[in-house]
Amino acid sequence: MANAGRLSRNFRIDKPRKFRLDDFDPDDTRGLASEDDAAALLRKGVEKLAEMEEKLYAQDSWGVLLVFQAMDAAGKDSTIKHVMSGVNPAGCQVFSFKAPSTEELDHDFLWRCAKNLPERGRIGIFNRSYYEETLVVRVHPEFLARQRLPAQVVSKHIWEDRLEDIASWERYLTRNGITVVKFFLNVSRKEQKKRFLARLDDPEKNWKFSAQDCREREHWDEYMAAYEDAIRATSTEEAPWYVVPADHKWFTRLVVADAIVDRMERLGLAFPRLDATKKAELEESRKFLMGKK
Amino acid sequence: MANAGRLSRNFRIDKPRKFRLDDFDPDDTRGLASEDDAAALLRKGVEKLAEMEEKLYAQDSWGVLLVFQAMDAAGKDSTIKHVMSGVNPAGCQVFSFKAPSTEELDHDFLWRCAKNLPERGRIGIFNRSYYEETLVVRVHPEFLARQRLPAQVVSKHIWEDRLEDIASWERYLTRNGITVVKFFLNVSRKEQKKRFLARLDDPEKNWKFSAQDCREREHWDEYMAAYEDAIRATSTEEAPWYVVPADHKWFTRLVVADAIVDRMERLGLAFPRLDATKKAELEESRKFLMGKK
Repeated sequence: MANAGRLSRNFRIDKPRKFRLDDFDPDDTRGLASEDDAAALLRKGVEKLAEMEEKLYAQDSWGVLLVFQAMDAAGKDSTIKHVMSGVNPAGCQVFSFKAPSTEELDHDFLWRCAKNLPERGRIGIFNRSYYEETLVVRVHPEFLARQRLPAQVVSKHIWEDRLEDIASWERYLTRNGITVVKFFLNVSRKEQKKRFLARLDDPEKNWKFSAQDCREREHWDEYMAAYEDAIRATSTEEAPWYVVPADHKWFTRLVVADAIVDRMERLGLAFPRLDATKKAELEESRKFLMGKK
Repeated sequence: MANAGRLSRNFRIDKPRKFRLDDFDPDDTRGLASEDDAAALLRKGVEKLAEMEEKLYAQDSWGVLLVFQAMDAAGKDSTIKHVMSGVNPAGCQVFSFKAPSTEELDHDFLWRCAKNLPERGRIGIFNRSYYEETLVVRVHPEFLARQRLPAQVVSKHIWEDRLEDIASWERYLTRNGITVVKFFLNVSRKEQKKRFLARLDDPEKNWKFSAQDCREREHWDEYMAAYEDAIRATSTEEAPWYVVPADHKWFTRLVVADAIVDRMERLGLAFPRLDATKKAELEESRKFLMGKK
């Protein structure tokens, strides 16, 4: 564990064709026994992240898009909260995509995400994303009907087409200086049940409970198959998926923080260096300020 | 000329690999001698267009994106005005893309176009478009610098990459029920000069003259090469380019109107037909209204 930079690589999908969700254990903690073991590592990761975000902002060239996908109660919100709370909110924006609005349904499916892409120098976080178009919409064909697509374009291979379109789009984003990192928080069905029950038992968590979320458990296997397909089709060297164990929230956070640091380190972030002209300008300004009251 | 539906096909690029701009004569009028000859045909096209747009709107399933690209003074604005003025503006929106704003430069290059894509049931018109990213930006590398892309992503084949990205995106749009039609208004260098001089001579046209536009003539051959590349790389069966002769504005309009009608006819537009339940509802409503004062 000396090199925290390596932890997340255990969960990065580098060989998507061989990817099988069953090979990934939601309960995995890589030998760490408890939250206490992880606390110092997480703190280090969060600090490193804040430091890199400052450079990202100053350099104003790369954008970073973090995509979070998961079944309900896997810990998306709390992961975002704990991993990103050291970061300056001026350089970081979270978008949560819920059921699409009428206006959103009137557009192509990438539309609502495309217009909320991060600017250069910023981190954009998608809590759920365009991947829902190949997950919940695939599991519930009635949601596809709501999109009112012309019959001519709804083909038998619509899900493969959508995944191909998403992969092409992410390649385009990379080419335009937006680096994409995708997280599937891999919670087990059993742990989800436990967390739902906690939401029922604890009055302070009641507000988070939804009977609909609960019913979605019926479709568990279909969701897992859809996730497996999506990850296989779209995990690339430039925009990889991480399948993060999510039965222990403290471990999820550790892996996610480590992965973001690892990916941002590739970008060669640095404070802009000034050339001679610019330095001379600074000297001029200093003189100007010193000459005035 | 009996079947106006065929006129525009002479200018549609069906074999993009063999496309050479030199094979297309800006002065072509397909034997029509004058504006008078074309007037009745144009009127018919415009009427047909208005009729189809009503169905497009009622059916609310397809969207139509019309892209206009050209050198200055080729007649983009006047073509849009004359061809589209029969159409209900509630179902049609024109966006003119000029030099990108600071906010636009802060995003990926498709961003400003993607967020203005037409909704289902609508016609969206792009007066200039994302293609500028492979035209003016290619001819003027200093504009590329303004995008502040990370050095790592600016490769030697950036223009091929951009054209590939655009083609993938248009395929995605088609799959999502947005049909794309692209027009290059092909004006000759000689005719452009004549029109610029007219802008200088006629006080009412003075406002349209720009010294910068004039200087761009120096780069004519580079622009033509860039257009040729763009059309070769992105003319597809689903989202074709039309290379429209533009030395005679009346002929340009005729071809553009005809092409839009031709493309929209493929969509199988029709007023929605009501099923038995819906018809019964209408009868209920009739009874309700008749029973009241």
